[in-house]
Amino acid sequence: MNTPSHISGLLSAPFTPMYPDGSINFSKVPDVVNLLIDNKVKGMFVCGSTGEGPSLTTEERKQLAEAFVKAADKRLLVFVHVGHNSITEARHLAEHAQQIGADCISATPSTYFKVDSIDLLVACLQEIAKGAPSLPLYYYNIPVLTGISLDMVKLLEKAGEAIPSFAGIKYTAPLIHDYQACVNFSNNKYDILYGTDEMLLSALATGANGFIGSTYNFVAPLYNTLMEEFKKGNLKEAQRLQYISVEMVRVIVKYGGLRAQKAMMKLIGFDCGNVRYPLNPFKEHEYKLLEADLKSIGFFDWICKPKAATVF
Amino acid sequence: MNTPSHISGLLSAPFTPMYPDGSINFSKVPDVVNLLIDNKVKGMFVCGSTGEGPSLTTEERKQLAEAFVKAADKRLLVFVHVGHNSITEARHLAEHAQQIGADCISATPSTYFKVDSIDLLVACLQEIAKGAPSLPLYYYNIPVLTGISLDMVKLLEKAGEAIPSFAGIKYTAPLIHDYQACVNFSNNKYDILYGTDEMLLSALATGANGFIGSTYNFVAPLYNTLMEEFKKGNLKEAQRLQYISVEMVRVIVKYGGLRAQKAMMKLIGFDCGNVRYPLNPFKEHEYKLLEADLKSIGFFDWICKPKAATVF
Amino acid sequence: MNTPSHISGLLSAPFTPMYPDGSINFSKVPDVVNLLIDNKVKGMFVCGSTGEGPSLTTEERKQLAEAFVKAADKRLLVFVHVGHNSITEARHLAEHAQQIGADCISATPSTYFKVDSIDLLVACLQEIAKGAPSLPLYYYNIPVLTGISLDMVKLLEKAGEAIPSFAGIKYTAPLIHDYQACVNFSNNKYDILYGTDEMLLSALATGANGFIGSTYNFVAPLYNTLMEEFKKGNLKEAQRLQYISVEMVRVIVKYGGLRAQKAMMKLIGFDCGNVRYPLNPFKEHEYKLLEADLKSIGFFDWICKPKAATVF
Amino acid sequence: MNTPSHISGLLSAPFTPMYPDGSINFSKVPDVVNLLIDNKVKGMFVCGSTGEGPSLTTEERKQLAEAFVKAADKRLLVFVHVGHNSITEARHLAEHAQQIGADCISATPSTYFKVDSIDLLVACLQEIAKGAPSLPLYYYNIPVLTGISLDMVKLLEKAGEAIPSFAGIKYTAPLIHDYQACVNFSNNKYDILYGTDEMLLSALATGANGFIGSTYNFVAPLYNTLMEEFKKGNLKEAQRLQYISVEMVRVIVKYGGLRAQKAMMKLIGFDCGNVRYPLNPFKEHEYKLLEADLKSIGFFDWICKPKAATVF
Repeated sequence: MNTPSHISGLLSAPFTPMYPDGSINFSKVPDVVNLLIDNKVKGMFVCGSTGEGPSLTTEERKQLAEAFVKAADKRLLVFVHVGHNSITEARHLAEHAQQIGADCISATPSTYFKVDSIDLLVACLQEIAKGAPSLPLYYYNIPVLTGISLDMVKLLEKAGEAIPSFAGIKYTAPLIHDYQACVNFSNNKYDILYGTDEMLLSALATGANGFIGSTYNFVAPLYNTLMEEFKKGNLKEAQRLQYISVEMVRVIVKYGGLRAQKAMMKLIGFDCGNVRYPLNPFKEHEYKLLEADLKSIGFFDWICKPKAATVF
Repeated sequence: MNTPSHISGLLSAPFTPMYPDGSINFSKVPDVVNLLIDNKVKGMFVCGSTGEGPSLTTEERKQLAEAFVKAADKRLLVFVHVGHNSITEARHLAEHAQQIGADCISATPSTYFKVDSIDLLVACLQEIAKGAPSLPLYYYNIPVLTGISLDMVKLLEKAGEAIPSFAGIKYTAPLIHDYQACVNFSNNKYDILYGTDEMLLSALATGANGFIGSTYNFVAPLYNTLMEEFKKGNLKEAQRLQYISVEMVRVIVKYGGLRAQKAMMKLIGFDCGNVRYPLNPFKEHEYKLLEADLKSIGFFDWICKPKAATVF
Repeated sequence: MNTPSHISGLLSAPFTPMYPDGSINFSKVPDVVNLLIDNKVKGMFVCGSTGEGPSLTTEERKQLAEAFVKAADKRLLVFVHVGHNSITEARHLAEHAQQIGADCISATPSTYFKVDSIDLLVACLQEIAKGAPSLPLYYYNIPVLTGISLDMVKLLEKAGEAIPSFAGIKYTAPLIHDYQACVNFSNNKYDILYGTDEMLLSALATGANGFIGSTYNFVAPLYNTLMEEFKKGNLKEAQRLQYISVEMVRVIVKYGGLRAQKAMMKLIGFDCGNVRYPLNPFKEHEYKLLEADLKSIGFFDWICKPKAATVF
Repeated sequence: MNTPSHISGLLSAPFTPMYPDGSINFSKVPDVVNLLIDNKVKGMFVCGSTGEGPSLTTEERKQLAEAFVKAADKRLLVFVHVGHNSITEARHLAEHAQQIGADCISATPSTYFKVDSIDLLVACLQEIAKGAPSLPLYYYNIPVLTGISLDMVKLLEKAGEAIPSFAGIKYTAPLIHDYQACVNFSNNKYDILYGTDEMLLSALATGANGFIGSTYNFVAPLYNTLMEEFKKGNLKEAQRLQYISVEMVRVIVKYGGLRAQKAMMKLIGFDCGNVRYPLNPFKEHEYKLLEADLKSIGFFDWICKPKAATVF
């Protein structure tokens, strides 16, 4: 097992580039990956919530994972999210991820039939892990989307024993106390990657090292600077930068969340197309309103830019 | 379009027969279908919640739908549930259902990204309907599993206009007033099939004709008798029979719901195997306890039996 | 103990008449009571949700209960709702209800600190019962307002043993199967009064005798006729009448619920004033809109009228 | 108006000392207050959740507030929580708080009828503020208990305009991004006092100055040291101390929350008695178990101690 223990820095959950008809635009994948590398992003979480993974077919998820792994070319870590309502399908996706050379897998449990105990959650993860025994497995804890809110410390206790490849949690929830308990569990044994971007500073202050999020797709420099300033002891500056993130997320929420975030890729010059149903496609007239709101909070001072002058 | 308007009687959502390793036991499908026909069940809702549809892979769902359609051989209606977190996958499943000769399709929306408006729900259903334009489409309203609770009368108003093949709702919720409003909508234009078995009498009294449920798999005679007695004006007897259903459902809930219902198939002599993860497999020692509880409420007096003496 | 066992017919939860400044208009209480008696309402549930009981001060609740008991003058049953966040205050209200000659008491538990077990609920009810040992006590089950949803059959098992004065449940929820289980419990030992007016027919069909609701304040004749037609076997007519109730409740919901219901008293000629904060006062311009919507569904054909020609 | 602008440091929500029969033990109030002062607590939040305020009668709340104000004797700030299901009663409590010389008031809205808009929330707070126009008013935001989760930035916008005495928020929720937005609102115009003790470090890192909590009753020295270490730049030590708090709160949750916290006062030598219904009284045999769990995490190294050697 090759556990990339104590992953640090920013990991981005990339959007899935789409054509106007909703089909995947694979040709844009390398640009998306290069943009992240150019902006010091250390890894990717593909086919996750931000990538509309659950809205893709199994076949599309496999092709997309492959495209990202290929484009990454070992220059940054690739997590493949394999969560599915069908645990069997999830295991197949895990198997595929291992075959194509992904670095890690991650999974949410079913959101139709919901597990209501740690034992059942561990049983599901165990089943999924069978598909990719040599890839580190991270539980994807995101109660606001899954409706599943269990004690994560207890998960670490039980999954650690039952699943050899279990490596940690992608932790997307505001309960920093629970997050801190996970980080400290068993002498920092596991990677607990924090996922609520607008609270990065809170997680940082309590001991976080690695972060997986969606807003790192367009403003990674904001957060990288924030982390540097915090490390230097410039707390006021770190707070100021976090507050820009807070205001940005308020704008995102105002425009409907994920649908607006994908629209923001177009605004920074890396059009990834629109979202697919069941998400609500972004309307043409909304782009200008969104842009104005983002301009007013200084968003464009912090956006990801390609290293060279070339823009796609 | 061949809308089977005003479907009446009991429709059953069959369990998916499984081998001990969780794979589908297709050889048992004909027996399951024949048992339903022998017990005057008028239709089937395959790959639904009871059939653990969301726990199956896309490939399995297709094969299973085909097996049920073939075994039904036009002797009873076959609904194929095509709901999926991926609307694209759902459309593919709809397409497949039409190809294999299913009678109707039904769908829940995504339970990961949840629609929060009727307009978005209609857009998703419209997308799915494109896959099977000649099959009547029923929305599958089951808030307790999907977490989506919208105004069904407004759905009828909008879906009826936007989707030519829209035919009604499989309505699984206790809000009989809302159910009655749907039944009465536009002069009983749509089929509103009621799905909370333990409240069948309530729905019957307010105007229901058709019912889709899980407990009709093992005690269809109980409900068929209940409906006859109600029609004859024997209200007290209908209440008595409904109360047996109520007590049976209390036993089912005590043993964990769906997992216990599948176990009950074994108890009536039609073993469909155990449930798959993420459901909690029924434990060996629980069968005896469940059987005793069911015996105490007279469950075995009402179970489905094959017409001939042959038991499989 | 004088348990009014097997209460039947309609019981109304009267509005609290208020002056424009929000203070209670006690002078209107006798008119409200007489209107109910004139329309064959068999009892009242005072200081409940409809009466904005939780929005009144303890002192006001006592005075109001007294005014209703006096106006009732034993011509119809008076339930006093004594539920309060402070169980101690609830016990005091129970004590007062007994002193003034109320017939029954009823209570919700605290909605701030919520009980999460039947044992704790029974302990609270027991504490409240101490204040009025000679008055029958009804648990007021209304999960949509209290956020407390426990197994009512288990409550009957435990409260019946622990509390000598325990007499039943005011059951306001759509779970008719659970309701039916409570009605049938221990050979119909308890009074289980149904409280979801728009589902009266469903409850009636499964064995209900008594009903407590808010819409009986203005359209008691609709429901009394419905019950008569059902008894005569005229199911279609009963369904038609229930559907008028369903449409009326859709109008009520459209205008914000309780605030609209109080406004409807003005529309039938018995102005009870406006609601108090935290409810949203009805706006002047809304009355006409509400009236038009109600007219379109035939509401005014069924309203409560005084026996004599005098209108107040 | 005497707004104690930018309150800093720890404010404690004291327990209400009770006799075994549940009545208030006023004689212990001075000891409780002195212990807080001896441990550098800067203020008190009386009759709040921790003080079981909602479980007390109106009369008891008044007497208790008076006892705390008197014992405080201007040596530390006294907030009186006046929230009540009856807004009228809340206004009376506000009036009383002003009469007895409290420093500030705070209120939750009704938890029975729940406000569902900022406008309605502001209207309720406005009504309450009328009772105490010269006392700074703080909204008490605690969604986990009230079930009300509104946008706090919008509250600041509207309440600030509508209510002259509006002074800020007691913010008890883990959404630090929203908390930070409130702190930064209008150039730090309002006092936003953070209330989730086990996340104090997160709030501190994003700009918090003042904290109101329950665990400051027994381990104020832990948090005071944490804040000092953080200020000195000793982040690792601050994290270590916060983690003790996290582990302590896990123990508290294990033993049922508030009921366990009140029991902890006995364990540190300042017995405040047991909780009142609807909370679940702490059982005799649980004290030893709780003590052992607390010992194992080093709780007793950080407990509040009286300045002099006298213990009561």
